[in-house]
This record gives sequence, structure tokens and C-alpha cells, in this order.
Amino acid sequence: MNKKTNPLHHMLNPDSVAFVGANNQPTTMGTVQMLQTLNFGYKGRVYPVHPKEKSVLGIRAYSSVRDIPNPVDLAVITVPARAVPDIFRDCGAKGIHYAVVTSGGFREVGEQGRKLEMQIVELAHRYGIRFIGPNCLGILNPHHRLNLTMFSYKQPPGNMGLASQSGTYVTQVLKYLEKRGVGYSRALSIGNKADIDLVDCLEYLGEDDRTRAIALYIEGLKRPRLFLETARKVSRTKPLVALYVGGTEAGSRSSASHTGAVCAPAKLYSDMFRQAGIIEARTIEDLYQWTWALANQPIPHSNRIAVLTHSGGPATSIADACNKNGLQVPRFSTKTLDAIKPLVPPTASIENPVDLTFSTEPPLMTKILPPIILEDPNIDALIIHGLMVTSWMSDIKEAAGDLIGDIPIEQIGQMVKGPIKELSGLTRKYDKPIICSSFVDSDIEVIVRTLHQFRIPAYDGPEKAVTAMSAMVRYSDIREGSSNQT
Amino acid sequence: MNKKTNPLHHMLNPDSVAFVGANNQPTTMGTVQMLQTLNFGYKGRVYPVHPKEKSVLGIRAYSSVRDIPNPVDLAVITVPARAVPDIFRDCGAKGIHYAVVTSGGFREVGEQGRKLEMQIVELAHRYGIRFIGPNCLGILNPHHRLNLTMFSYKQPPGNMGLASQSGTYVTQVLKYLEKRGVGYSRALSIGNKADIDLVDCLEYLGEDDRTRAIALYIEGLKRPRLFLETARKVSRTKPLVALYVGGTEAGSRSSASHTGAVCAPAKLYSDMFRQAGIIEARTIEDLYQWTWALANQPIPHSNRIAVLTHSGGPATSIADACNKNGLQVPRFSTKTLDAIKPLVPPTASIENPVDLTFSTEPPLMTKILPPIILEDPNIDALIIHGLMVTSWMSDIKEAAGDLIGDIPIEQIGQMVKGPIKELSGLTRKYDKPIICSSFVDSDIEVIVRTLHQFRIPAYDGPEKAVTAMSAMVRYSDIREGSSNQT
Repeated sequence: MNKKTNPLHHMLNPDSVAFVGANNQPTTMGTVQMLQTLNFGYKGRVYPVHPKEKSVLGIRAYSSVRDIPNPVDLAVITVPARAVPDIFRDCGAKGIHYAVVTSGGFREVGEQGRKLEMQIVELAHRYGIRFIGPNCLGILNPHHRLNLTMFSYKQPPGNMGLASQSGTYVTQVLKYLEKRGVGYSRALSIGNKADIDLVDCLEYLGEDDRTRAIALYIEGLKRPRLFLETARKVSRTKPLVALYVGGTEAGSRSSASHTGAVCAPAKLYSDMFRQAGIIEARTIEDLYQWTWALANQPIPHSNRIAVLTHSGGPATSIADACNKNGLQVPRFSTKTLDAIKPLVPPTASIENPVDLTFSTEPPLMTKILPPIILEDPNIDALIIHGLMVTSWMSDIKEAAGDLIGDIPIEQIGQMVKGPIKELSGLTRKYDKPIICSSFVDSDIEVIVRTLHQFRIPAYDGPEKAVTAMSAMVRYSDIREGSSNQT
Repeated sequence: MNKKTNPLHHMLNPDSVAFVGANNQPTTMGTVQMLQTLNFGYKGRVYPVHPKEKSVLGIRAYSSVRDIPNPVDLAVITVPARAVPDIFRDCGAKGIHYAVVTSGGFREVGEQGRKLEMQIVELAHRYGIRFIGPNCLGILNPHHRLNLTMFSYKQPPGNMGLASQSGTYVTQVLKYLEKRGVGYSRALSIGNKADIDLVDCLEYLGEDDRTRAIALYIEGLKRPRLFLETARKVSRTKPLVALYVGGTEAGSRSSASHTGAVCAPAKLYSDMFRQAGIIEARTIEDLYQWTWALANQPIPHSNRIAVLTHSGGPATSIADACNKNGLQVPRFSTKTLDAIKPLVPPTASIENPVDLTFSTEPPLMTKILPPIILEDPNIDALIIHGLMVTSWMSDIKEAAGDLIGDIPIEQIGQMVKGPIKELSGLTRKYDKPIICSSFVDSDIEVIVRTLHQFRIPAYDGPEKAVTAMSAMVRYSDIREGSSNQT
């Protein structure tokens, strides 16, 4: 299927959207969805639909989609479940071919809901409507300034595609992802997947130019065989990371009441993921962070990792975690050692890991040592821990009060941009990835914000940099394995 | 050893401190240590020692500790390694019995450093000096307003004791821990442990009334047999969590250059931890978070967990992770189900997990449902995911601009305090722990800040609540096992 003919292309790039269920109450779901769309600067036309209100959020409202005088590309439906069939009939009559159904109360609530869901599927077939949901939390396409969720998206458009059976994992995490520098290319909350399912998402995201890696949250599959085939194809050229939840008794029970999914044991899924070339995440944090690293850094050619830090604990944690996660931390070549030695303090360790110990020369870690290390032919990738300038300077400034002279924090902050940009350039020059970790979050540390800006992942734990790197090495193996097969 | 006679008691509660190595340069280590001490509101006397300066940071300086006219309880030594022996002689002459040696350049840098370290050990014996370090990053006792590190401590004094062979894991993480609501009772960066070692720390923290759970970061042990014996004793009454790093080839090599530790395979340590009743953490994040939960929440009587959320994805993730981590998610009793049913929206699932689906009634999750759930005799503990009010309201307010009326965010924020206080009271009333997770960080969400204030852990990932709960259940087993033996 060509990407332009995939229904998701149309859903994610509409010229006009009708919001069925928005009103003027700022705490109802449909209203907040419409608010977020307006707030995001969506360029298309917006039509609120409300049985009584003459205007909704300052925009002229219509009592039915049938009354909208212009064509409508997409209907966003957020009304009680029992009202959805009539809305589908209205959409059919109006000639609306795409819908996002956020209403809940279908298959996930039992027999009556299941019947209602079958009814809307039947109506969709009758009227030629493709829809996502029901029981979903909307979709996002930052490149089209489309945000049909209840939370604001403030990141620059990114290159991580996400399809999720949990709406929370698409929407409630937006602030979380923002702080961690993670941006969506497209994100899809697919809910009960009564029509559009994970296979459709995978096909679309696989062909989508804006998407460089794909994250999947799965509670159960409708078409496992086709999913496997599609994933196997996509994973040859694009990294896929998946979190499957539902393989245990409690997970399966919870999943049934969440999206009505029928679950299989975790091992079945793990085996299928392996066959499909999908990297399996263990937690939702891994799912985002690994996919983000895969979407933004070069894939390492092999598993030989260099570690650069000024902290012995993290150096040891990273080295140890590397070995535990199938990565090597080889000694540097003599040439590399000779180049590093005169540049570092006498207390430093320069065998890989490089531990500068106490050092107040941030350029060493961002500018001077990384090219020397990446030049080493025995090194495939670099992990840097502990970059930090403004957060610590602010801390000292506050502690010092009038006791010492002024510390020009803003100026210091501005000085980091150049080196981080160069660092980012090195990853392309050497075609080797860099992943960072630091205990200071982006809201207090300009280096971390700048790393995010240049799409170098920076995690809040040293071991997280290692597991993300390990996922990248795994993808390197997957890609090589599939190219050997063909 | 009685806690008053443990040298750490004296180091952590000095009436006067000499800073040997502080000057007026705000970026040198000794100066920042002194700044942080002053800034923390330390009540004792402070004596800078500097060969030339007449005053340091506005306080009269002495050219040697010998010249200080009053008694000195503790010397903080931050001078080049080769100068440390003379400082020890001066301390000996002055009658200073305790020192914190942050200077690096000893055993961790090779043969010459090893000799220097032996020399200061010998001098310490000769003069009756007990010291921590060298190559450490200082110690903290918030209850005495003592902070001998380079980073500020802003949390209220806590009840997690930490002893670490990595100074970074004591000091550079202070902002990280602050944001996560974690407070120290005492924290010890022990460096090369040339004198005070982990056994001393364990003895001290084991007897310390302010410490309710102990976190240990270990790269290698000096006295493994005594450590095991001591840990076995302490773990009967106080939870111990340890992270051992150094069991792999790369970890061991890194560790040798970090603290000069000699490492053993990970499996040996895991076995010893099990024998000693120590819970083994896998990452530094686990080490803090598990210990914090153990220090602040009641220990569960068994492994039957209730899950309460408004998000199906996290509900399923938590339920699945529970089963994978040895926890049960049992169905509620009929009485509990009957009590919950009339209170929740029709789309909610009420079999454990309770998933309220979209709900704008925060009191349901904080106030109304928790006592009903904790009352159930089949439930030992509760995990709540997704508490969030002000961050989302601010988000909507910003998106809405003038389109809707004002949202009184501050007022809404104030309303959460009462219910969270009650929630905290429930853990005591029922003697059952509550652990939360939420994707909004404390800096943007008042509920998360309030949870921290009442010492209910709130993590940024649903699976993290589960692994912490699992650690608590493990401690319940450890305690029971050891009481059966005695």
C-alpha cells in the first residue's frame, strides 16, 4: 500500500476537522482536544459540532456534521458510546471518510459494548469510513501541526513514530517526553483497533519519510501473521522497538478490560519479535528512550564502546553494565592513549573508561577528547556521563552569595552550544553514535537542553545510556542479519 | 561498637571543622566544600587553613591547623596528595582526631599513590586519627546541617542512609534526589576506604536512629567476612539495599582505577547479599528509589497488590510487571467490589486493577477509593498511577488563553494537600504501603510534590513502582526468614 493511499496518511494530514463532542466546558475531553488543536496552530479549518451551542470556543458550531457547508476530511468523535452510530450515519451522509473515535464504552466494557462496536464497524463499511479507535485518545502529527489529544505538544517535530494501544502512552507522557527531548514524527493512539490496527500503523510508519524509528506498545494483536510479515519487511530499513504487556495472568486480565485484547504468553511474543527483527523493550521508559536513540544517532557498526566521564562511579557502572548487556569496553589503541595522556589531569584514568576525575574543563569532555576517541578504529560508539555546567554554577553562585565575585552563568551557558554542535557533527563524520547520561535534568541544565536540541540522547541514569546503546547494537545485528538473508 | 564510639558519629556531628585547602577561588574543590557548609547553615565553628591567605570566604584563615586557637573536631583535607602526610602530622600535633580526605591521587593512580596511601594510614595510626577517604567527595548529615560536599543539599533531612564508594553517587545526584523527594539521614562518600570502610558505615548506619533504610554502592570489599556478619545482623531490623558494580571484566578494570578495589565476580556478591539479607539493586536509580520506599513506607505483609489508576496502559503495565516480579494482583473481595462499583464511571474497570478511565475527579484516586481498597483483607499494598492536577490544568489554561474562563490553578493545588495527608495516614492505619507513579515531575505538578512531602514515593514510570514494591516484599521475606532463624 502506498503511503498516500494508507488511511492514516489522510487522518494525519487533514485540511479540515469536525469536532463532534466539543463544547464550552474546559474539562470535557472533546473540548480539550479541540483546544489543543487550536493552540498548536493547526492551519486547516475547524468545525465544532454541538446539538445546542451556536459557537464553541469562539468558533461557529453546527448541530450536525451534515450542516457543515464545506467538505470535511476528518471527524473527531467524543460523545457517549451509544451516540456514536448516529454520528457515523451523519458522517456517511456528509461524505466524511475518516474518523478518530475517542469515545469509550465499547468492547472493553463487555457484551453490550462489543455489540455497539460491531455496529460501528458495520456502519463504517457501509459508508466507506476508515476510523481509529474507539476508546483511543487521539493522534498527533507535529509536522502538520495536528494534535487531537488532550495534552499540549511543545517539542519541535521529531522523527520517532509511535503506535500504541494505550492512549496514556501517547498523550499523558507529552510533558515527560518534552523534558527528555523526545519528539514525535507521528503518534497514534489506536484504542480498541476496531478498524485501523497495528498492522496499518506499521505499514504507514514504515513508509513514512519523517519517521526514522518506530515504537509500538502492544497489548494484543488482531492480525499476528500479517504483523510479523510487515515488521520483518520494515525492520530491514527502519528500527522497530516494541513493548508487549499482557503475557501474565494479571496483565492479560487488565488488558482485556482495557482494550478488549486477547493476550498470549510473553514468550510467544518475544519469539515473534525476534523473528520479525523487532527489539523488545522491557519498560515504557526503554520504549521511548531506545527508539529515540535509534531514530537520531548513527547505528554502531559493532559493540565496542568507549566511556568518557569525570566520575568513577558512573564510569564503573557503565563499564559493568556494558559487559552485562553484551557490549565490550576495549582498551584504546596506543595512538589514542598517547593522544589523550597529555590532555588530562594527573589523577585521571585513561584506559577505557576515561575518568577525568575532578575537572573543571568542560571542553575536554565535549570538544577535545571525543574526536580523539572516535578516531580510534577499535571504537564503535561513545557514552559520555556527567556533562553539567550551568546547574552546578548556579548552585555555587547561590551558595556563595556575596562571598565571591559574580559567576556569568548565562555567558557560560552560551559557550556550550558550539561544542555540542561539533559533538553532534562528529557522530556524522565518524558514523558512530554518542549517547549521554547526566543526573541533571534539562529544566536546570543548559548542556542537557543543548544535547536534546542536537538530538543527542541524554538520560538520567548511566545504565540507561548502556541499555539504549545495547538496543542500537542489536539493531545493527538485525539489519545485518536481514541483509545477509536477502 | 556503640554508635557514640563509632568514629563516624564524631565525623558527622562535629562542633568545629577546619577546611584545609579552601581558598578564595570559587571553582576549587575545597573552597566549594566550605561554601556549601556555610550555605547549609552549619552551626559549628569553621576554620579555613591556607598558607598565604589571611581570610578565606570572609572568615579568618590560619596558615596551619596548629595555629587555630580552639579545639578542632574535624579536618576536611583537600590539598594535592603529596601534601597530605604533612597535614596529617599537623592534625596529630593539634590533637585533631577525625578527618575527611577528599584529595585524590592515591592508590587509584598506581604504585606511587599506593605508597602515599600507606604512609597516611601509618600516620593516622601514630596520631590516633580516624579518617574517611582519601579520594572521596565528602560526607553529609542534614540533621546536623553538615554538608562537606561540593553540591547543595536542599531537601528536608530524610531517613535514607547512604554509604558509597562513588562520591558522584553521594553528591552529584543531590539535585536529582531533591526532585524525586529523596532525603538523606547521613550520606558517606568513602573513596579508597583506606581507614573507614563499608563495615564501619554499616555498623554506624545500622545503629543510627535517624536511618530507617540503608543504601550501599559497592565496587569491592576490604573485609568481606565481617561485612557479611554485620549486614546479617543489621538486615534483621533495617532494610539494606546494595548495588555491586565490578563483577565484569570492564567493570573490574574501571573499578581498579577508580578506587583501587579488587573485584570479585557478580555471582559471588549476589550469593553473599542473599546470605546477608541484602536486597540487590540492578541500577543506581533502583538503589535510591527502593531504599527510599523501604525507609518511608510500611513493609507489606505479603505480595498481594492492588492497582488504582485512570489509565489502561499503565494499569496493564503494572499488573504485568507485578506478575513478572513475583507479586500477585488478586481479585478484590465481593464486599470491596460492591463498595467501589457505585462510585466510579460506567466505563471503569473495577476488577483489580481499578481503571477509572477518563475521570476528572481526583478525590476518587486520593481519598475515596484507597481506604476501600486497603480495607480488603486480600490486599497487602497499593500502587496508584497517574495522579496529576495542576500540570494538566496549567496545560489547558495555556492552550485555552481567553477562550474559556479562568482556571484557579493555585486554589486547585491547595486542595490536594488534605487528601494526600489522609492517604499517608492510611498507610499507617492499615499498615500497608502505597507507592505512586506519574509521568509528571515534581517541578510541574503539585500532587507529586505533595506526595514527596508526605514521603509517599512517586516514580516517573509505572514499572518502577512495581520493582520498588517487589523490593519491599523481598524485605518482608528477609525479615521473616531471619526471625524464624532466631
